[in-house]
Parts: sequence; structure tokens; C-alpha cells
Amino acid sequence: MKNSNMKKLGNSDRKSYKVIGITCGDLGGVGPELCLSLLENIQKYPETYNCGKLKVVLFGSKQFMLNGPLKFDFERLNIKFLKKNGVQDFVSDTPLSLGNIGFVDCDSPQPVSWTLNKESKENGIHSYSFFNKAIDWANNGLLNAIVTAPINKMSWNLADVPFSGHTTMLKEKTGVDFVSMGFYTERLKTVLATVHVPFKDVPDLLTYSCLKQALESCLEFMCKLGVKCPKIAVAGLNPHASEDGLFGTEENEILIPFVKRINSDSDEKGMFGEFELTGPYPADTLYHRAYMGDFDCVLSLYHDQGLIPVKLLSFHEAVNVTLGLPFIRTSPDHGTAYDIAYQGKASASSMEEAFKLAVRLC
Amino acid sequence: MKNSNMKKLGNSDRKSYKVIGITCGDLGGVGPELCLSLLENIQKYPETYNCGKLKVVLFGSKQFMLNGPLKFDFERLNIKFLKKNGVQDFVSDTPLSLGNIGFVDCDSPQPVSWTLNKESKENGIHSYSFFNKAIDWANNGLLNAIVTAPINKMSWNLADVPFSGHTTMLKEKTGVDFVSMGFYTERLKTVLATVHVPFKDVPDLLTYSCLKQALESCLEFMCKLGVKCPKIAVAGLNPHASEDGLFGTEENEILIPFVKRINSDSDEKGMFGEFELTGPYPADTLYHRAYMGDFDCVLSLYHDQGLIPVKLLSFHEAVNVTLGLPFIRTSPDHGTAYDIAYQGKASASSMEEAFKLAVRLC
Repeated sequence: MKNSNMKKLGNSDRKSYKVIGITCGDLGGVGPELCLSLLENIQKYPETYNCGKLKVVLFGSKQFMLNGPLKFDFERLNIKFLKKNGVQDFVSDTPLSLGNIGFVDCDSPQPVSWTLNKESKENGIHSYSFFNKAIDWANNGLLNAIVTAPINKMSWNLADVPFSGHTTMLKEKTGVDFVSMGFYTERLKTVLATVHVPFKDVPDLLTYSCLKQALESCLEFMCKLGVKCPKIAVAGLNPHASEDGLFGTEENEILIPFVKRINSDSDEKGMFGEFELTGPYPADTLYHRAYMGDFDCVLSLYHDQGLIPVKLLSFHEAVNVTLGLPFIRTSPDHGTAYDIAYQGKASASSMEEAFKLAVRLC
Repeated sequence: MKNSNMKKLGNSDRKSYKVIGITCGDLGGVGPELCLSLLENIQKYPETYNCGKLKVVLFGSKQFMLNGPLKFDFERLNIKFLKKNGVQDFVSDTPLSLGNIGFVDCDSPQPVSWTLNKESKENGIHSYSFFNKAIDWANNGLLNAIVTAPINKMSWNLADVPFSGHTTMLKEKTGVDFVSMGFYTERLKTVLATVHVPFKDVPDLLTYSCLKQALESCLEFMCKLGVKCPKIAVAGLNPHASEDGLFGTEENEILIPFVKRINSDSDEKGMFGEFELTGPYPADTLYHRAYMGDFDCVLSLYHDQGLIPVKLLSFHEAVNVTLGLPFIRTSPDHGTAYDIAYQGKASASSMEEAFKLAVRLC
């Protein structure tokens, strides 16, 4: 899937700056307006967004941007159109000037359509093509990070996109063995061992290999954040982490042996560098302890275990991070929010935090 | 198990005041010092604790209080010893004066022992006898509420107490069909449909009858708090409440039919009075919505689902409420904390909140 027309950036070209790609997401939802808000803030407050050493490339639809409800003012925003494969025009050693935001039009030249405030086949085709193009750029070394505005799974389904979402597509198109979902808030970081699976399937999915992958992702996350010798805590599955088997078997049979094996096997531990792994801890108090600073990252076992605390603590600021990829990918932790799109109601906080985190992780 | 020596209070006797019982809990843990702190605050700040219309009775061990590490100064605290069954001395129509806190010595006259900072058979015998006596008083109409300091399940086990904890003992000794565990914080209230059961057993336990009991307990809770036409939200079990069956079956097969049946069957709904029941909602955002005021009470499906948000929001102030009983019972939401007992480190906040909530619910 890699595009041979693109010039692959060598390391030497990239010492002085980083390139962040932003995808517009589903055109029916809040993605485009969040991107607009983000770009305006990048122009207005370049220091806040560390833009002295950054280039930013937006992947979207020119026709929508010019004729859609937002009426993007490319000139005022000083956005430069890039040829689809003409990255050479943009990627150079010149540090980003304030006017230097690039735009890649991912549409075909024919007139295109979209549907506001709901899912549609057209919306699926657009958002898939934005993301597809951004991954191609990243796979060719042209992007250090991708920040994705929300897509809608139903739109992708209607457009026959062969992936269930951003994350599965990333795994497939980068060819990595596994990816993990992590969440960043100022005081709580967590990685999920299982994600979009039925509650009742969770216990059987918690194998040694699954937990080790999640641990590896925790350590990648902490490394990118610059945390030395991170303290990683494994959450318990059962109430009170089972009280030594009184309320369930998984702590004694899977979680405790996992922690012991990692800590005692220098081959297993050595491959990751220095860290402290402890647990399993009763989940009801663990997230409070992590929030208070006892742990740098929580290895959560299932979706709601990790996301209830993340969303409670940082509803508008939490950022989703995909771990295990050859580049950075972050996104806001909300969906398309069709019901409030194009009404000026959407909070851009999570999208902005996603951008700032991508910059930091680079 | 009811004690026929006691004079049962008629309604007419109790119009002018309420009686709150407090049990000291495990003598090895933080219970006794939390009780002492609470009694001192009741004496110092009677208005805060609404004591103009309250009587307070502490159930404990006189020998421990006099000779144990706390050296309870009964005289300074103006505490009046009550004969074990001599409630007539205490219960009268005279409103509580500041000096009028009663103490029921639950020990036998023989010398007794205890073990500080750890579980023991003796600690189990004591804490069981305090609670047993308080339930007898409540069953005889002498207490409006019991506030329980923490016991230790291992101590009860060592003492051959035939109950696994406060709640199961309450259910047995009051003869009610079911009890539910509720949690109170200032901005989030929740009731658990299942409690101390293995994670993997949760889906099968979520029957119509189980959910209806939990709903009944939500409504009892809201009624006691004086909330008119409460908004009750049912949490989803699977990620994103299954996205219409994509990640699990329980929403479509159990939770949605439960909400529909309650709302459409006037016989089912009418027995509870006016309320709004909605859901199931994705759990990761539901607790934030409840916290922001969208719902008065969340019907949580399992232990950690309800307790992760409760403890994250109100680590030191959350109160556990037992619902379904003929009287009020509240307790702090922490355990004996043996490791910090008798060092002046324990926070009395949750115990004090438990007392204040008991007063309010009366």
C-alpha cells in the first residue's frame, strides 16, 4: 500500500522539525469544526502548540472545506494546498513559519457530496480516504504523528470500508503484530488489555500473551512520555481483586502469575528496560491511587474499567493513544457527536489535547 | 432473635427525636478511633451533627475503651453507661442534651482481650457482639439507624461467626427478602445489582428479578433522600452498551427489555410511585453524566462499575448504605486499615459522612 511516488524522508531531513498529520474525520460530525478550531489556535497561539519546530498537514476534502457549512477561509488561515503526492513541495528543511500549514485534498476531481449531522456512505468514503492517505504518508516516513478527528463506524460500514475503525485499520496497514489502546489524562494514564469485546469474553482473553502485550504498550507509552523506571500497576478483575480467590479465580490463576513471571524472568523483564510492575490491585481504589501519584500507568483489563475513571476525571481533555505503531497516533476520546455538529456547541478541548500530546510524544 | 426484655418504642414516643446506634467495629483496626473522633465532634459541634433531635448510642467494649490504647475519657465525653437491656434508662421523651450519649457494653463481665493492628478471633468475637446487640435494638424499634465502623471478615471467620459480613447478617437477622448495597456521595448516588461475586458470574446474575430489586432499592434510596420523581439510569454491561449487540448480548436480551417492561407495565411501575427509568447507557460516560446532574441515581450492574467512580470522586467521603431494611444502616466505604490503626493517621471523614447521612435518611 506504500506509495512509491513519495520521497521518503531520511533521518537527516527531520532533525530540526516534526510533521503532524490531522485527519478531518466524518464530515457529518464535529471533526471538521474541531480541526478548524485547532488550526486557528495553532495560528493564534503558536507557542502553546510548540509550532516553532512543527509542520502541520491537514487531510480533508477541498470541496467540503470551500463549499460546506464551515466555509474554511484557507487564505486567512494561510494554508497551502499540497499536491496529493507532492510532498516535496512541503517537506523541506525550512522550519515551519506561522503561515505554513499544508492541506492535502483527498477527493477525486469529480463533484463530491456529504451528509451533515448523520452517518452516510459518502461520509464513510471521505473519512476513509483522509485516513488512508495520512497512513500512506506516515508509512513513508513523512509524518511523525497522526491526530484523527472522529469517524463513524456506521458510515464506514455503509461505504464498505473493510475495517471496523481507525485502530484495526492502523494495525493492518502498518503490518504490526498488535496495537493497544491507551488513554492520557494529566494525572491518570492507562492502557487497555482488551477493548471492544463482550464483557463475558474478557476473562478468557486475559492470557499471559495478552497481558504482556499490554505491558509492552504501557512501557512504550511511558518511554514516549519520558517517564524513567515507570511504576505500572495491574488492575484486578474481580471485586477486591478476589480477596485471595474468594470472589473469582483470575487473580490467582492469571494475574498474580503474570506479575511474578515478568518480575522473576530477567529475559522477559530485560527486554523492556527498567520498570516496576505490581498488582493485581482492587480496581475500585487503584484508579484513585494512580490519580494521587502512586503509579505512573494502570494496566486495565477491560474497556469500562479503564474508561470510567478516564472520562470521569477528564471528560473534555482525555486523549486516546494508539500504541505499538511505528509512528504516533492520538485522537480525542469522543465520537462524531452528530447531534451537536455545526451548531458551535462542540468542545475542541479533547482534539486540542490530542494534538498537544502528539507533539509531546514526538 | 428479638429480645423480649426490651421495651418496644411506639411511634408516639419517637416523634421528637431519632436514635442513632454506632458500632465500634474490629478493635484491631481504625473503627474505635473513628468512633472517638465522631463522638468528640458531636459534642463539639452539635449543630453540625443535628444533635438537637438526636440520641446517640455507642455499642462497644467498656474494658477496651477504658484500658485499650485510646483511653476513652467517658467523663469528659459525658457518655452515660446503659445497662445491656436497660434501654428504659435512656430512651425517654427528653430531647438529647449535649451530655447525653449512651454506651452499651457488649462484653461479658470476664476479662476480655483484643489484638491491635491485625485480625484475630477475639477481635471477631467483639465486633460481632457489638453489631449483634445493635441489630437487636434496631429490630425492637429502639434505633432508627445503625452506623457501623469496619469489621474484618477474617476476624469473623476466626471467631466462627456464621456471616460473611455486616450486610448478610443484616439480611438474615431482619428477615427481609433482599438487601442492596448503595453508595452516597454528594454528586453521585448508585446502587449495585450484584456485589461480591466473580466477574464472570455477573452476566448470568442479571435477571429481571435482580434488576427489579436493585431498582426498588434505588427508589427507596431516593425516597429517603427526599428526591421527587427521581431519574434512574441503568448502566450498560458491555463496551458502549454493546452498540446494538455488536459487543455482547445482555443489553438487547436483558437490560433493554427490563427498562421497557418496567416503563410499560403500570402494575410494575405503579408500586414504586413516580420515577423516570432510562438506559442502558454506555458506562464509560454515564457516571460523568450522573455527576453532572443528568441522573439522580445509577443502577450499577457490578461492584467495580459502581465503585470505581464512587471512590474516585469521593475517596474519603463516600458512604455505604444498606437498602431494603426496616431501619437505616450506613457505614464508611473503607475497611479496618490495620496498617494505620492507632497512629493518628486514619481519616474520620467517611465515618462522619456515614453518621451525617444516617441522620439525614432518618
